[in-house]
Amino acid sequence: MIPPETHLQIGSLLFDGLDQIDLTGPFEVLSRIPNTTYRVYAKTTDPVRDVKCLKLTPDATLAEAPQLDVLHVPGGFGQEALMDDEEVLGWLQQQAAGAGSVFSVCTGALLLGAAGLLRGRRATTHWASFHLLPLFGATAVNERVVVDGRWVFAAGVTAGIDGALRLAAELRGDDAARAIQLYMQYAPEPPFDSGTPERAPGAILDQARRAVADITARREATARRVAGRLGIDAAKG
Amino acid sequence: MIPPETHLQIGSLLFDGLDQIDLTGPFEVLSRIPNTTYRVYAKTTDPVRDVKCLKLTPDATLAEAPQLDVLHVPGGFGQEALMDDEEVLGWLQQQAAGAGSVFSVCTGALLLGAAGLLRGRRATTHWASFHLLPLFGATAVNERVVVDGRWVFAAGVTAGIDGALRLAAELRGDDAARAIQLYMQYAPEPPFDSGTPERAPGAILDQARRAVADITARREATARRVAGRLGIDAAKG
Repeated sequence: MIPPETHLQIGSLLFDGLDQIDLTGPFEVLSRIPNTTYRVYAKTTDPVRDVKCLKLTPDATLAEAPQLDVLHVPGGFGQEALMDDEEVLGWLQQQAAGAGSVFSVCTGALLLGAAGLLRGRRATTHWASFHLLPLFGATAVNERVVVDGRWVFAAGVTAGIDGALRLAAELRGDDAARAIQLYMQYAPEPPFDSGTPERAPGAILDQARRAVADITARREATARRVAGRLGIDAAKG
Repeated sequence: MIPPETHLQIGSLLFDGLDQIDLTGPFEVLSRIPNTTYRVYAKTTDPVRDVKCLKLTPDATLAEAPQLDVLHVPGGFGQEALMDDEEVLGWLQQQAAGAGSVFSVCTGALLLGAAGLLRGRRATTHWASFHLLPLFGATAVNERVVVDGRWVFAAGVTAGIDGALRLAAELRGDDAARAIQLYMQYAPEPPFDSGTPERAPGAILDQARRAVADITARREATARRVAGRLGIDAAKG
């Protein structure tokens, strides 16, 4: 826990084709931690479109970011285009080295993997990419939120809200997180029980796997190539 | 349920000082209903800042919006500035008259109230504004999602995700909603049980009520004034 009088710099990586709630879910939580600054950073300050075309605009460029106390990395189909992006991967490496907490949501974990930051860690990601984590040297843990020291990994998409509340509690104590939860009226009541591969009806899961088959195959090919660049022996996991 | 071959126009009202997840939560769900167009509308196409300064940009102006099939109205502290805004209230009236579904999240319900659209309806809103609903002629129902015919009301902030899944099911059937829920990996695990006034620890609730006391008092004064304008006898609820 960090003393309330210590100001925290929180920052998200923003990129074209992210899944917007990977960012906006954590933003809703973490921006409400008292005595923090939350800003959104991208390669340029141009607006970007999320995977379903919501328009989001960064506050500043990667180069303008201070050393962050909390580095947040969202995912989404657009992550794939950054897996060899030296500017982005270098920024993640540099920020992660100095940050008190690193927090990925969904396939944001694959970006951390491409930056060589998953080796030896327990991690999670979206269910459709879960099997790719060992290619980056991580141990895949099938939990909604995985905390490994100063690293917090949330599973797919909406898991970022739960992960952010866990992180808020780590940063400023359980009551700070409970106060944010109450403000957000976060007492979820999903109308169906279809939120994981284990619980969704078989036909829905089959359809969902078909829908992501192409991007998953591309992500796997990329992960294998990146593992080679990083010198990770994927067979060893 | 609407046939899958019928294209649906979905639109959100965007305004300065909204609570961004009132919009981005439903966007995540509703933008994934097949054969839909989801666009975000505001008085001008300038970017706006949410209550915690996330920058969002509309796709088009209110005047440019087609007749929507689904009208979505988010809330947030900035709602208060629109309670006498003739352009916005007129747009809500006009769109609501032709829309197949009207969906408010959080204090977006108060905007529907100011447009005279809550009279005689069962509705809900954020817990801190719940007592204001009768001033607009509504029956306040303490449930997370209230469906009253073609009107869907979600309680505070994150309730918009649950409301959107309910609405997706109403629009295109339960399996369409289940498929979206699986994609979003929406199997929430809040780390604390503090998401409603009934469940939050007393000290947390007291602190939260103090934090919103000023805005709640302003909202109440506005609601009483608007009720007068609308000719609603608040005493009758």
